[in-house]
Amino acid sequence: MARWEPDARLRLVRAAIDLYAEQGYESTTVAQVAERAGLTKATFFRHFPDKREPLFAGQEEHAALLADGAALAPDDASPLEVVTAALDHATAAFTAEQRDWGPRLRAVVGTHDELRERAAFKRAHLTGTLAAVLRDRGAGEATAAIAADLGVEAFHRGFDRWSDGEGPSYGDLAREELRTLHAAATALR
Amino acid sequence: MARWEPDARLRLVRAAIDLYAEQGYESTTVAQVAERAGLTKATFFRHFPDKREPLFAGQEEHAALLADGAALAPDDASPLEVVTAALDHATAAFTAEQRDWGPRLRAVVGTHDELRERAAFKRAHLTGTLAAVLRDRGAGEATAAIAADLGVEAFHRGFDRWSDGEGPSYGDLAREELRTLHAAATALR
Repeated sequence: MARWEPDARLRLVRAAIDLYAEQGYESTTVAQVAERAGLTKATFFRHFPDKREPLFAGQEEHAALLADGAALAPDDASPLEVVTAALDHATAAFTAEQRDWGPRLRAVVGTHDELRERAAFKRAHLTGTLAAVLRDRGAGEATAAIAADLGVEAFHRGFDRWSDGEGPSYGDLAREELRTLHAAATALR
Repeated sequence: MARWEPDARLRLVRAAIDLYAEQGYESTTVAQVAERAGLTKATFFRHFPDKREPLFAGQEEHAALLADGAALAPDDASPLEVVTAALDHATAAFTAEQRDWGPRLRAVVGTHDELRERAAFKRAHLTGTLAAVLRDRGAGEATAAIAADLGVEAFHRGFDRWSDGEGPSYGDLAREELRTLHAAATALR
């Protein structure tokens, strides 16, 4: 456990995305991912339970970023202002490398039911986290659920556009998506 | 394939829910589910790929019910009216036995990540189906996404309340949940 493995987790994620895109998800083994990362299979299993998980390594980090960002909003912020603060904080943490992973991640996840399932679960986890923060701040249960859902939808739509090469920044794109979704929600008849 | 197995699918679902609730999901085998249903393991595998799937047997049926119900709405119906028609049609198809499964299903699914994942995927599938119907009817993309999401949320919330013994009908509870969610969406600030 105490072995010196700088950035082991990141290297495993990088190796997994590269290999799944190059040679397919099914035909890649954990041993190959570890080898590409210059690590052992045992090290892989210290970081991830199976070959699916490197693709969702950001789940807890993203949930924490959204929650931390929401906490930065003033006490009297509206639910939508809280969601905006969450998005601003979370999107600012993304790196150019993560942006470049986008198209490959989408291609791999979109063609495997077990990965689409896992992605749906990650999404539900992010939405649940944000909704809980909003309820703690006093939002009604339905309001918290909807605001969280729009926020996580904007988080994903913004990422897709950003990773497709749209600028200027992930944060701006996520805010734009949130405005679009909010306008549609308030106009719904 | 042509063997006479009346209601085999339903019997397998019933046996799975009973056994998972009685003795736990992990400790139940496919062979036990088949035996409880009075069927063979081979028959189980003709209907389901693994022991998880009987719990989500309704996925395609529910998606079809929502889509068929949406198609019953008049051409000039608003997105919310389309969603209401979808809910009315889908909820009317539920049986008292399905209602009684609710609490056991929730208890089993809620305590196993692999089942919660699968449930999140089913939910995404229902939402995607309803959103596609709404887009086909001319709703904007964001409007379709939000209306579908509120509809599927109401479908689940209504079911939870109905299966907890609230009356009078699943349809009425789903409509009530949809009204609550819609009010929260249009008031979101």
